[in-house]
Amino acid sequence: MERALTCQLKKYAGQEVMMQGWVHRTRKLGQVTFIVLRDRGGLGQAVIEGDQHDPIQLMNESVIQIEGLARLDERAQGGAELQVSKLKVISQPVEPPPFAINSKHIYSAARLDTILKHRAISLRNPRIRAIFKVQAELIAAFRDFLTKQGFTEICTPKIVSCATEGGAELFPVQYFEQKAYLAQSPQFYKQIMVGSGLERVFEVGKAYRAESHNTARHINEFVSLDYEMGFIKDEQDVINMEVELLKYVFQRVQDSCAEELDIYAVQVPQITEIPQIPLAEAKAKLKQLYGVKNGAEGDLSPEEEKMLCEYSRREYGLDLIYVTHYPASKRPAYTMPDSEDGNLTKSFDLLFKGLEITTGGQRIHQYDLLVESLKNRGLDIEDFESYLEAFRYGMPPHGGLAIGAERLTMKLLGLKNIREACLFPRDRTRLAP
Amino acid sequence: MERALTCQLKKYAGQEVMMQGWVHRTRKLGQVTFIVLRDRGGLGQAVIEGDQHDPIQLMNESVIQIEGLARLDERAQGGAELQVSKLKVISQPVEPPPFAINSKHIYSAARLDTILKHRAISLRNPRIRAIFKVQAELIAAFRDFLTKQGFTEICTPKIVSCATEGGAELFPVQYFEQKAYLAQSPQFYKQIMVGSGLERVFEVGKAYRAESHNTARHINEFVSLDYEMGFIKDEQDVINMEVELLKYVFQRVQDSCAEELDIYAVQVPQITEIPQIPLAEAKAKLKQLYGVKNGAEGDLSPEEEKMLCEYSRREYGLDLIYVTHYPASKRPAYTMPDSEDGNLTKSFDLLFKGLEITTGGQRIHQYDLLVESLKNRGLDIEDFESYLEAFRYGMPPHGGLAIGAERLTMKLLGLKNIREACLFPRDRTRLAP
Repeated sequence: MERALTCQLKKYAGQEVMMQGWVHRTRKLGQVTFIVLRDRGGLGQAVIEGDQHDPIQLMNESVIQIEGLARLDERAQGGAELQVSKLKVISQPVEPPPFAINSKHIYSAARLDTILKHRAISLRNPRIRAIFKVQAELIAAFRDFLTKQGFTEICTPKIVSCATEGGAELFPVQYFEQKAYLAQSPQFYKQIMVGSGLERVFEVGKAYRAESHNTARHINEFVSLDYEMGFIKDEQDVINMEVELLKYVFQRVQDSCAEELDIYAVQVPQITEIPQIPLAEAKAKLKQLYGVKNGAEGDLSPEEEKMLCEYSRREYGLDLIYVTHYPASKRPAYTMPDSEDGNLTKSFDLLFKGLEITTGGQRIHQYDLLVESLKNRGLDIEDFESYLEAFRYGMPPHGGLAIGAERLTMKLLGLKNIREACLFPRDRTRLAP
Repeated sequence: MERALTCQLKKYAGQEVMMQGWVHRTRKLGQVTFIVLRDRGGLGQAVIEGDQHDPIQLMNESVIQIEGLARLDERAQGGAELQVSKLKVISQPVEPPPFAINSKHIYSAARLDTILKHRAISLRNPRIRAIFKVQAELIAAFRDFLTKQGFTEICTPKIVSCATEGGAELFPVQYFEQKAYLAQSPQFYKQIMVGSGLERVFEVGKAYRAESHNTARHINEFVSLDYEMGFIKDEQDVINMEVELLKYVFQRVQDSCAEELDIYAVQVPQITEIPQIPLAEAKAKLKQLYGVKNGAEGDLSPEEEKMLCEYSRREYGLDLIYVTHYPASKRPAYTMPDSEDGNLTKSFDLLFKGLEITTGGQRIHQYDLLVESLKNRGLDIEDFESYLEAFRYGMPPHGGLAIGAERLTMKLLGLKNIREACLFPRDRTRLAP
């Protein structure tokens, strides 16, 4: 007998089908027992009439197989229910779960720490599961858009011998006799790949930052959505690509995850264009509008990021804004200097609902300039030998960016803590599950 | 002016276009200079008539921008060429490359070690680039097929606190004050995700094995194509899914990478079904046919894997064969015992052209049985607490497998060394580039 998923039940109306899943909850009304069954398709209703099956045996979270007649019923979720004629318990819980998995208000039923500690079962809650449906769709849309734009997917090493984004904040790895680190970003590799002739590359991969602060915005292992593109005019080509990318990604999520967006009562941003503001101008604006005096030097503090997004929302009706022209002193050595003011760079951040979700820019492609820039930072050229090689034999102007997948998910759904947007987060103290 | 890629030139015939790319090679015939231009679309021909541009300045690998009239020419690659009216050098090599990048016989021009050391430029060779076009397509096809089958993509941690596949062969990571390791596989996490209610999950992620042998079949960081599925009858459901997956993947590569397959003069396997043989029977067959006496105990040696594929090719006309019923002593503790002989398991390997490319099976889903199995291996249950939790609250029968992306690429293209199928391989001594 064919298995019907809960979300397919209606189309099987009038037919005998088999269903499998978890008992989400049960309810007894006189001689009738209602089972809410949960499977990968969502929730669905099954009905046991009479007392041939003792519902007391049916603990919540039992894995069951039921057979019976699918019939239309407007009162049931999805417009149909299963009239159970046969029930088999496949697997029983050893004990009741440590909190109410089926609660609609899961954060009232359990604190975030409890939810993360018991990820194996907290993910059974539809509200929590929704996060990862949206995340999977965001990532798939990222890939699909870039593939259509002529980008090639690459897989680069996460065990590396030197830092890409500065020397601190690295996790050491013992690589046989050698000292190695976990990659902070695929920066050098994606640039090398542009120069390899692929021109346009993207990667969805892990990145690692040994940052010791424990905030609601940081995790130590995250999914970095990276792209890098050659033959650009300047950093505006990189930005334009991201604007089109985000339009596509948000549209896909809207089309595929309507139910999940509903659960969080959020709408995806409607983008026509995304405003840009040079950092110095943003600073002046924040001083003028909010009286900010001691903000971050050459950067934006978390508070300033929030205010700037509020400004963008008021001014442009959009919770997204690019900040451009960061000072060279605050950006990595590979960042292309601004053509008008050498103290500034062709770099940018994208803020979304008060949080930086993207860092990007044009990179230096001239071998001599790059060597000079590395030396000016007091870096040892020999440590960068294999990176520099890509620039010795003809490299086009290029640039790119990275989007933090968890941050994007978090902000899109209005989550309070980035850990909610990571299946199994790694933070200052958390190594399990 | 619009940029035309080399592969698009024909459709611009009769129009003025701009092209950008690397000088792959030049050739002077009297007053005419031919440039073979390389861009992300491939190779294309441009022609400079007269001596207004000194071709001597055009070193191979220079990055150039050319403008001119696209015109049909049957003699040119792709059936069209660019009649250059304007040429600009964007970026010049600092020195000639260390080997002939444009050689059709790249492995005559440079040894594998040289190619890997100079990955930044060796990837410019069309023969080498072809490998990664095919790999990107294999991976994309893997994802697309599973997504259509109701699988959800997951991203699980690669910094872990305990071993999944046995205690040796782990790379240690210093995680703040704690001792951690790089994940050998996403095994525990994908099982947890089945139990989380997603039922069907897949991951394309890095896996790490600190194996100290240096062979043509091993790298220490590889891309693991994993899936895991719930509500299976037995391991045959996992195998059936893979057979359909491989049919789809190979078809996609055939459709999208015809040129790349041509370069390697290979054809993708035409699968209707894939034969299966229990390990004991395979052993008997090898003894009978090839006189193998001292093969690997409870497993197949590399030599035996080759012979068994030869047998499959002769017997079934297919270079693929499943080996089933491995002994429990040779499989991890989570492997489901065979229902008829408890010393055997519901596990399998898939061999492709003499190499194991997949390991999989049904897993134990019963909490008590799993605890017992872990204890029987002398493992400390407390180390597996968060893994075991997934089994305490209702877990369906499930199974899954992992395919090594580099091994699949290597065997499909008939490469001799797995390092050729990895952009930046990590092996016993290699940490750069």
